[in-house]
Amino acid sequence: MSPERFAALWRSLLPVGRVGRDGGYLRSPWTPTDEYCREWFVEEALDRELEIDTDGNGNLVAWWGSPQNESGVVTGSHLDSVPHGGAYDGPLGVVSGLLAIDLLRERGVRPRRPIGVAVFTEEEGSRFGVACLGSRLLTGAIDPATARDLADRNGVTLADAMSRAGADPDALGPDPERLRRIGTFVELHIEQGRALTAPVGVASAIWPHGRWRMDFTGQPNHAGTTAMADRHDPMLTFAYAVLAADKEAREQDAHATVGRVAVSPNATNAIPASVSAWLDARAASSSTLDGVVAAIGTTVTERSKQDGTGFTLTAESESPVVEFNTALRDRIAARLGGAPVLPTGAGHDAGVLSAYVPTAMLFVRNPTGVSHAPSEYATDVDCAAGVEALADTLEELAC
Amino acid sequence: MSPERFAALWRSLLPVGRVGRDGGYLRSPWTPTDEYCREWFVEEALDRELEIDTDGNGNLVAWWGSPQNESGVVTGSHLDSVPHGGAYDGPLGVVSGLLAIDLLRERGVRPRRPIGVAVFTEEEGSRFGVACLGSRLLTGAIDPATARDLADRNGVTLADAMSRAGADPDALGPDPERLRRIGTFVELHIEQGRALTAPVGVASAIWPHGRWRMDFTGQPNHAGTTAMADRHDPMLTFAYAVLAADKEAREQDAHATVGRVAVSPNATNAIPASVSAWLDARAASSSTLDGVVAAIGTTVTERSKQDGTGFTLTAESESPVVEFNTALRDRIAARLGGAPVLPTGAGHDAGVLSAYVPTAMLFVRNPTGVSHAPSEYATDVDCAAGVEALADTLEELAC
Repeated sequence: MSPERFAALWRSLLPVGRVGRDGGYLRSPWTPTDEYCREWFVEEALDRELEIDTDGNGNLVAWWGSPQNESGVVTGSHLDSVPHGGAYDGPLGVVSGLLAIDLLRERGVRPRRPIGVAVFTEEEGSRFGVACLGSRLLTGAIDPATARDLADRNGVTLADAMSRAGADPDALGPDPERLRRIGTFVELHIEQGRALTAPVGVASAIWPHGRWRMDFTGQPNHAGTTAMADRHDPMLTFAYAVLAADKEAREQDAHATVGRVAVSPNATNAIPASVSAWLDARAASSSTLDGVVAAIGTTVTERSKQDGTGFTLTAESESPVVEFNTALRDRIAARLGGAPVLPTGAGHDAGVLSAYVPTAMLFVRNPTGVSHAPSEYATDVDCAAGVEALADTLEELAC
Repeated sequence: MSPERFAALWRSLLPVGRVGRDGGYLRSPWTPTDEYCREWFVEEALDRELEIDTDGNGNLVAWWGSPQNESGVVTGSHLDSVPHGGAYDGPLGVVSGLLAIDLLRERGVRPRRPIGVAVFTEEEGSRFGVACLGSRLLTGAIDPATARDLADRNGVTLADAMSRAGADPDALGPDPERLRRIGTFVELHIEQGRALTAPVGVASAIWPHGRWRMDFTGQPNHAGTTAMADRHDPMLTFAYAVLAADKEAREQDAHATVGRVAVSPNATNAIPASVSAWLDARAASSSTLDGVVAAIGTTVTERSKQDGTGFTLTAESESPVVEFNTALRDRIAARLGGAPVLPTGAGHDAGVLSAYVPTAMLFVRNPTGVSHAPSEYATDVDCAAGVEALADTLEELAC
């Protein structure tokens, strides 16, 4: 596939939800922008005479061939973004899936098994706080009643958001029949660090990872009149925790990030009453991850005693390591002429699905390593190579 | 004055703008709650047959006697609160002013000079970012055009907020005639630390203080996939700055606080693009204050180079030391039988007015030292003593 041909379809989606040149994307699930992205997908699928199937969770699959009697080979990814995220995380897998079908047809391939291109809902978890919400609901990894009550930062629940978007929240939940149709899942995704030096690679595993909520409480007081010795300032304990998390992650070869903070009352001249912050931590093994989080908990607890503040560390979500199907991985890597095999620190719908069906991932090179930010980028040449590799993989698995 | 009598008037204002038992007060200027507080004041003043005078800036004075021919002795404070602040900061001075007039009348005092009780608008600066906005406008310390364009966190300008509240923003500005009427100003206020061990004290000075904006910029990126060595995380530099500010303040016997933070995009799984935070710093002398802020700037700049992040420190407001009129202070302290004389780290309308008229402050003891927080507190006994002291002071100055 020529880079120009990749770029032509890619650019048709590119403006949707973009916030200026440097502002990245706001493609939040169950919003008008999300709806527009989904309409774009449905139109492209219908142009290709693919059949659209939607489950009660908002997940879409465009089918080439019927999965009624035989389970299919499904590719795809998601169209939602983190707030002010990049263009590639998610959409690259969807666009590549559509173009891979074009390529297979041009090659005259007649697949034995149906091929599907999926769009999963709320993969980023950036609105309702649970990553891979669509695939978790489909597989039953999350209870639909729990999901309905998830609320965004404005207090809008998933049930409300779906109703406003014209969808039925009562239809949420596991769908064994639709899950059965996914016989094999292959997600193509932009690589999100600088670990891949070839244009295309194959995933070995997803690092175990999780989110922990850190709550710091203190004595709210006047910034101007409270003697330093009389303070119980939760901002200090929080600041210590940020630096401690960074230090532990570096020492134990893990990743730790504090990217979200809420301060109360958040006034310039008031020592805060409380600070809440979220710790994102990941490591190659669960034991390392547990060790990092435990070490952070211990040292911050010590500090909170010095500061006379309260500190609690609460796990909000934890995902164990995902080892992708090794036979599938080796078969794909061989078919791609020995593509590099590498792990990732990021969660994906492929990670959720891997517990239910043989699953693999392809990565496209990311020259700067930037992801979840406006400057996230892959070259058209590498993306076109990704489409070729995905077409080869689908042909290998479906024929 | 009996504590019960103080408490009776005090409790009539207490419920207005209160957010539950532990939530403190939301008495933001130019809101319906603020309007309610002002109506309460006007009613209490009219019950006492005081004459209400309002300037174009929203400042109120209730006069006992006419200030047309002779300038008056004015007391009072403000009714607005910081978000989730306490009950006493501001309202104690207004309530005490009304009760002091009651006491003087009961004593049969016939003051030679008129006595006024003032309510200044937006003393806290918590909505539009400029502390003592009402007294600054009255005196001309801030330009009315600048003030009109000040915007709150929702982008509502002062001009808009005034219009919505039925006031005329074009009337904002200096009012030399009304300023002339304030011949002497005495503000009673709750003490805001634990420096006062007697029931009532007299202010010597307000520490020089200011607000500095700290902007940290980095490379937004994926929290899961970006190697620690590849990061340019502004949250780390910010956290370092919080701890550095605390350390410098403790070492140089100053106060430094970071109470307000804004993170972008503020997502759990994203290394932030930027963090902005505000530094509140105060010290007994300008040279100490300058030294603290400069030291923070230097050490955080060094750290930002290590982190590969951007850092700027920008002064948003700086107030020089205020030395209250020493003759007035000594006269009041003597009248009060040698009340303790102490400085404060907090700004007040009295500080703004002191550049224009002889000004003094009385403090009422704060047993816990908490201020700008729901648990801010003074005993009814001490507050009643404050009313007596204020009445004595007004009698001393007006007769």
